[in-house]
Amino acid sequence: MDKLNMSRHISGKFNDELEAVRNQVLNMGGLVEQQLRDSLRAIETSDHDLAEQILQRDAAINKLEMQIDESCVQIIAKRQPAASDLRLIIAIFKTISDLERMGDEVERIGRVALESFSNDQQDFLVSLENLGQQVLAMLQKVLDAFARMDLDAAVEVHQMDALADRQYEALTRQLMTYMMEDPRGIPKVMNVLWSARSLERIGDRCQNIAEYIIFFVKGKDVRHVSSDALRQALTGQQ
Amino acid sequence: MDKLNMSRHISGKFNDELEAVRNQVLNMGGLVEQQLRDSLRAIETSDHDLAEQILQRDAAINKLEMQIDESCVQIIAKRQPAASDLRLIIAIFKTISDLERMGDEVERIGRVALESFSNDQQDFLVSLENLGQQVLAMLQKVLDAFARMDLDAAVEVHQMDALADRQYEALTRQLMTYMMEDPRGIPKVMNVLWSARSLERIGDRCQNIAEYIIFFVKGKDVRHVSSDALRQALTGQQ
Repeated sequence: MDKLNMSRHISGKFNDELEAVRNQVLNMGGLVEQQLRDSLRAIETSDHDLAEQILQRDAAINKLEMQIDESCVQIIAKRQPAASDLRLIIAIFKTISDLERMGDEVERIGRVALESFSNDQQDFLVSLENLGQQVLAMLQKVLDAFARMDLDAAVEVHQMDALADRQYEALTRQLMTYMMEDPRGIPKVMNVLWSARSLERIGDRCQNIAEYIIFFVKGKDVRHVSSDALRQALTGQQ
Repeated sequence: MDKLNMSRHISGKFNDELEAVRNQVLNMGGLVEQQLRDSLRAIETSDHDLAEQILQRDAAINKLEMQIDESCVQIIAKRQPAASDLRLIIAIFKTISDLERMGDEVERIGRVALESFSNDQQDFLVSLENLGQQVLAMLQKVLDAFARMDLDAAVEVHQMDALADRQYEALTRQLMTYMMEDPRGIPKVMNVLWSARSLERIGDRCQNIAEYIIFFVKGKDVRHVSSDALRQALTGQQ
């Protein structure tokens, strides 16, 4: 793994601590990614047991967030990091908060899937496939961008969200048409709508993390900036 | 305002900086509170102009978040705070992130309200009243708890969320019944459902902030703990 110029630290122990906390974040991200992938697979194959496992595994993600939080606080208190190290730690604080909330969204999807399986109402769930795969690709890309603090990949995630938003809107329109055509199916279609919204929120959170990466690499806060303006700002700087 | 033992700092300037950043957070919270109150009023009175204003004012909240973020980074870099000061700054980082996302939810509510007014579809929006008032009360209580770092008020917010969740569930069931009875009304009822979910999320975020306050006061991480367990843990410690 790229050491991000960490060799310049006088204290080798400080390097190790920063590296350890970055690895913890990647582990946490890996867990969330696995949860999301499993939730999509559970939906695709109507796998009741897998959906159950998703609910059980969310606690591990929550625990990791608290551990990483604590590690970051320890590092700030002990090492009094400045400039770029501090920016990295701030980026980590924010990233794990988004990862944890993504975990909650996946848990919601798992819960909806379970309920749908139990009531034999899973027939519309598969319409989540496209949006789900797009959001999973965003999560993979943003974790990869985080691992390498890769600016280009982060900007790409920012752009991928536009497609996820369009997929979400198309799906919402389609599901509302179903409901109007067959009102008895409203409860099961609603479940799919909630899950679609959860997926869309996960995409938004991937975009948040992409922004923290850009903030770390460029020292530039790009929240609340459009994709076009972002591209322009970054190219203008290079 | 209670100075939270800040007088113990050797540097009077450090005190002033911490105090200034806390005031910024309260300003930001005040803005979000005003936005939420106005969105409920816009819904109640079908006030198109007020809903427009809500959309325009969200940018100010986003800007405040970035300013406070920057102030916190400056304080960490310059003052190298330890222990309780560091916990306060961490709590602030997290609090403003939740406040900003609440602002986004209110903006969504404003957008839905505008769309509903334009299409003359506002008749179900008023059913948001109870949930909206409960969530507004939670937000007021949690900002008050933050201003005074008041543990009891924070615990109370944690408990208020249970009622908000019940109100949200009752409303969801009621709205789904409407949709089944009159499928032509589905688009307008869906708008109310999205807004109800936004309100429920704002309540969740108030609960998050309550947990950061408890973390600051007790030095104890109470995320992912039930209300009962929380009460028990806090009483056991006192």
